[in-house]
Amino acid sequence: MIRVAIYNECIHEKNNEKAMAIYPNGIHSVIADFLKADDITVKCFTLETVEEITEEALKETDVLIWWGHVGHAKVPDEVAERVRDAVLTGMGFIGLHSAHHSKPFKLLMGTACHLGWRENGDMERIWNINPAHPITQGIGRYFELPHVETYAEPFGIPNPDEVIFMGWYEGGELFRSGCTFHRENGRIFYFQPGHETFPIFYDENVQTIIKNAVRWAAPVYRSEALVCPHIKKIGTEN
Amino acid sequence: MIRVAIYNECIHEKNNEKAMAIYPNGIHSVIADFLKADDITVKCFTLETVEEITEEALKETDVLIWWGHVGHAKVPDEVAERVRDAVLTGMGFIGLHSAHHSKPFKLLMGTACHLGWRENGDMERIWNINPAHPITQGIGRYFELPHVETYAEPFGIPNPDEVIFMGWYEGGELFRSGCTFHRENGRIFYFQPGHETFPIFYDENVQTIIKNAVRWAAPVYRSEALVCPHIKKIGTEN
Amino acid sequence: MIRVAIYNECIHEKNNEKAMAIYPNGIHSVIADFLKADDITVKCFTLETVEEITEEALKETDVLIWWGHVGHAKVPDEVAERVRDAVLTGMGFIGLHSAHHSKPFKLLMGTACHLGWRENGDMERIWNINPAHPITQGIGRYFELPHVETYAEPFGIPNPDEVIFMGWYEGGELFRSGCTFHRENGRIFYFQPGHETFPIFYDENVQTIIKNAVRWAAPVYRSEALVCPHIKKIGTEN
Amino acid sequence: MIRVAIYNECIHEKNNEKAMAIYPNGIHSVIADFLKADDITVKCFTLETVEEITEEALKETDVLIWWGHVGHAKVPDEVAERVRDAVLTGMGFIGLHSAHHSKPFKLLMGTACHLGWRENGDMERIWNINPAHPITQGIGRYFELPHVETYAEPFGIPNPDEVIFMGWYEGGELFRSGCTFHRENGRIFYFQPGHETFPIFYDENVQTIIKNAVRWAAPVYRSEALVCPHIKKIGTEN
Repeated sequence: MIRVAIYNECIHEKNNEKAMAIYPNGIHSVIADFLKADDITVKCFTLETVEEITEEALKETDVLIWWGHVGHAKVPDEVAERVRDAVLTGMGFIGLHSAHHSKPFKLLMGTACHLGWRENGDMERIWNINPAHPITQGIGRYFELPHVETYAEPFGIPNPDEVIFMGWYEGGELFRSGCTFHRENGRIFYFQPGHETFPIFYDENVQTIIKNAVRWAAPVYRSEALVCPHIKKIGTEN
Repeated sequence: MIRVAIYNECIHEKNNEKAMAIYPNGIHSVIADFLKADDITVKCFTLETVEEITEEALKETDVLIWWGHVGHAKVPDEVAERVRDAVLTGMGFIGLHSAHHSKPFKLLMGTACHLGWRENGDMERIWNINPAHPITQGIGRYFELPHVETYAEPFGIPNPDEVIFMGWYEGGELFRSGCTFHRENGRIFYFQPGHETFPIFYDENVQTIIKNAVRWAAPVYRSEALVCPHIKKIGTEN
Repeated sequence: MIRVAIYNECIHEKNNEKAMAIYPNGIHSVIADFLKADDITVKCFTLETVEEITEEALKETDVLIWWGHVGHAKVPDEVAERVRDAVLTGMGFIGLHSAHHSKPFKLLMGTACHLGWRENGDMERIWNINPAHPITQGIGRYFELPHVETYAEPFGIPNPDEVIFMGWYEGGELFRSGCTFHRENGRIFYFQPGHETFPIFYDENVQTIIKNAVRWAAPVYRSEALVCPHIKKIGTEN
Repeated sequence: MIRVAIYNECIHEKNNEKAMAIYPNGIHSVIADFLKADDITVKCFTLETVEEITEEALKETDVLIWWGHVGHAKVPDEVAERVRDAVLTGMGFIGLHSAHHSKPFKLLMGTACHLGWRENGDMERIWNINPAHPITQGIGRYFELPHVETYAEPFGIPNPDEVIFMGWYEGGELFRSGCTFHRENGRIFYFQPGHETFPIFYDENVQTIIKNAVRWAAPVYRSEALVCPHIKKIGTEN
C-alpha cells in the first residue's frame, strides 16, 4: 500500500474565478481522484490544516505531493523543516509547478529556485528525453498542453540527478520541466506544469506522469531517525 | 586578486590545551599564513566577530573558508543565510572538517550532513581519485595524516558533483574526504581533515589542497542579486 | 519473468586448482543457483559458446551478468558490440570483478577502466554508502569478505551515476566497489568482489547484492532498435 | 601556450555549392582564424591528412576540435582509438555539430549518440542555463542563430556532467545544445550548432563559446600513458 498525502494551499480555488471554475473542490481533490487505486490511499491537507502535517502524519506518509503559490510564506517553518526531514529519512516528495518556491522544496535544494516567468497562456510542448525512466512510461516522444504559465531558464536548482522532461514554449523559452533528485534516503520529483487557471491536472499525460512519479518516489527504505552516530572502533569497546 | 575570508569559531584554541598548544593564534591564523600570496588577500572572522560577516563583507569576498564545531548553534541564522545567498550569487565556499555540520553548509546541501565519528587518533590515508582535477594538482596517489578524527560513511550529503579524495582509516572506516558541489553560481569544496587537536593544517599536502581549492572556488562570474524575474514575451511588451 | 543470462568465460575453473576446488562447475553455475526464483530464468554462456550470444539471444535477455578475466581478448568484437547495443536498447548489465576490463564494459564506459591491483588475499570491508538504494536492501552498514583481490583507486571510469558501495582493504587501499551507470535505456551495475580463487559467490551478502541488482537492472522499457530518425517538421509533411 | 588542433573532414566545402560559398577555405580555416591568440597555436587536419593524427601529434595537442559528417566512416578506427586514448590521458576534445556521430565521440560516450534531425533552416534560440560556467562567459541569457539544422531529443548520450546550453527551435523541438563530460583526465565539450550550409562559425556568440571552450578543455594534468598498475602492498615489497 502506498500512502500518499497531498498538500494544496487551496487559496486560488476560493478567490480566483477561473481557478474556482476549473477546480471547484480544489486542485488536491482532482489529483486525489485520479491517483486512487487499489494499492494507494490518499489524504489531503490545505493551508488551513497545514499544522496537521505533524511528524506523526509524515511517518505515515510514503509520498507527499505539494502544490503552493501565494501561501508559501504562511506555511510555518517548522512544518517545512519536518517535511524536509521526512524526505531525508525516505519519504518521497513531488513538487508541482509553483512549488519550486515552496519552503520544503527550497530547503531540500539549498538554492533559491528562481526562474523567469510570464503568464501569456503559451502552449507548452513537453519532450520526453528519457524514455526508459519509470516516470515517463506511457508518454510518447512529446505531448502538448495548450495553455500554461511559462517558466524560463536559468532555473536556480542544483544539477538534477536526472532531467526527464524538457518544456518548449511557443513564445520562445524552454525549461527543465521534469527533474529528479535524491536527498539522503528520499526521492524528489519536480514537475513544471500545473497553473491554477488552466485545466492541466485533467490532462491524461499529466495524470500518467504523476501516477508514475508516486510509484517511483515511494520509499524502498525508511530510516527511523536522522542521527550522527558516535561509533566504536570496529572490534573494540571505545 | 582573490579575496579570501576565513571564519574560524576559535573556541577550542581558547579552552582546550592540546588545541592551544598546536594553534596558539587560532586555526585561522595558520591557514591565513600559508594562503598568503601576491594575488591573495585574507581576512579573518571568529565567533566573536561573526556578526561582521555582513552582506557587504560577503560581496567583497571571493572565497569563504569555514571551520566550526562546538559553536555551530551560536552562529546567527541570518549570517548563515547570508553566506548561503552569497554562494548562490557566485562566492566560493570551502568547508573544513566539522564544518559538515555548520549552518551554511547544511543550508547549501539541504540535508542533515550526518556521519559516523570517533576520536581514536587513527591514521588516515587520503587517496587522490581524480589526478586531473585542479584541486589535486601536486598531490600524489595518496598521502597520510598520522592522526585524525575518524569520519565514517554513510555521509548524509547529496551526490557530490565530484568525489576527488577518499579517506582510508586504519581502524576500518572510509569516507568521501574531498567533495565538490556547484550551487547556482557558487562552487563548494568540502574537505574532511582538520581536527583541532592534531597539527593537520601544518601538513604540506593539506596546505596544497586548500591553496588549490581557493583558486578553483574563486568565481568566474558573480550575479548582482538573486531574482525571480517576470519576463516579457520575446519581442513584445507583455 | 526476468530472463537472466550469465556469461562466465570459465577458464580458471578448468586450469587453476584453487578455482576448480571452489567452483567445480564454474562460477556461473553458483550464480545461476542462487538466482533461481519463481520469476527468474537463467541461461549460461561460456567462452566456448560465446558466439551463441547473438542479437536474437540478447533480445530475449533482460539482464546479462558478465564474468571474464584472462579470456577478454578472445571475446569477438562483434559479440561485445552486440552486448553494448542491447544495453543501449534497455537490457541490464552486471559486470563482476575483472569484468572491469571486459570488452562490453569498456565499450559502454568509453574509458580504459584501469585500476591498481594486487593479490595478497586482503580482507575487504564493504561499506554500504546508500542504504536507500534498491541494490543495498538487506545489507547492513558494512560486511566483510575475508580474502579478496585488492583493487585500488584511481579507477578509470566515468563519474558513476551512483556509488553505493565502497571497499576498504586491510592493506591500505580503497575502491568504489559498487557503482551504477545508465547508458541510454540500459542500467549497468559494476561490483568489485569476485576473484576466482576465493569463495566470494557463496557469501550471503554478495548473493543478496547480485539478486537485488538483477531486479534493479531489469528493463522497464526496451526500444526496438537504435535509430537516428529523420523527423518531419511538427504538423507538416517535410 | 595552448596547442589546438582542428580536424575538419572538409568534404562539403569541395562539393556543395552553399558550403563552398560560405567556407571557401574550409570550416577549419574559419575556426583557426578566430581562435588565433598570443597564447594559442592552431594546426589543421582534414580527411585527406587524417593519418597524420598520430600518437605523436596528439601528444603535442592540448585541445582537439572535431567537425565531421559524411566522412565519419572513412576515419580509420585506429585514429579514432588514438584520439579517445589521448583524451583519457588529458587532452581536451570539442565536438561540433554532426561530430555527435564521429567515431572518437561515440567511443568516448559509449552510446549510439542518435538524435532526431531535420533540415528546414529553423531559427535556433540558444539558452544559457549556466551563467557561471567558464564556457558561457560573455554570452547573455540567450542568443539566436537565424538558420540551423534542427536536432531533437532524445539525444542518446550518457547523462552529461553539465548541460550549459539548451536549444529552442522555432519548429517545436529542443535539444541539449551544449554539454560537458569528463572522461578520465580529459574534458569534453559538445556543441550543437555548426551546419555546413549556414554561416554559423562567423557568429560572434558561437566564436566566443568555442574560444571559451578551448581554454576550459585545456588540460591541467596529462598522464604519460594509460596503465593498469600491479601495485605492491603498501610498505612491503610484494
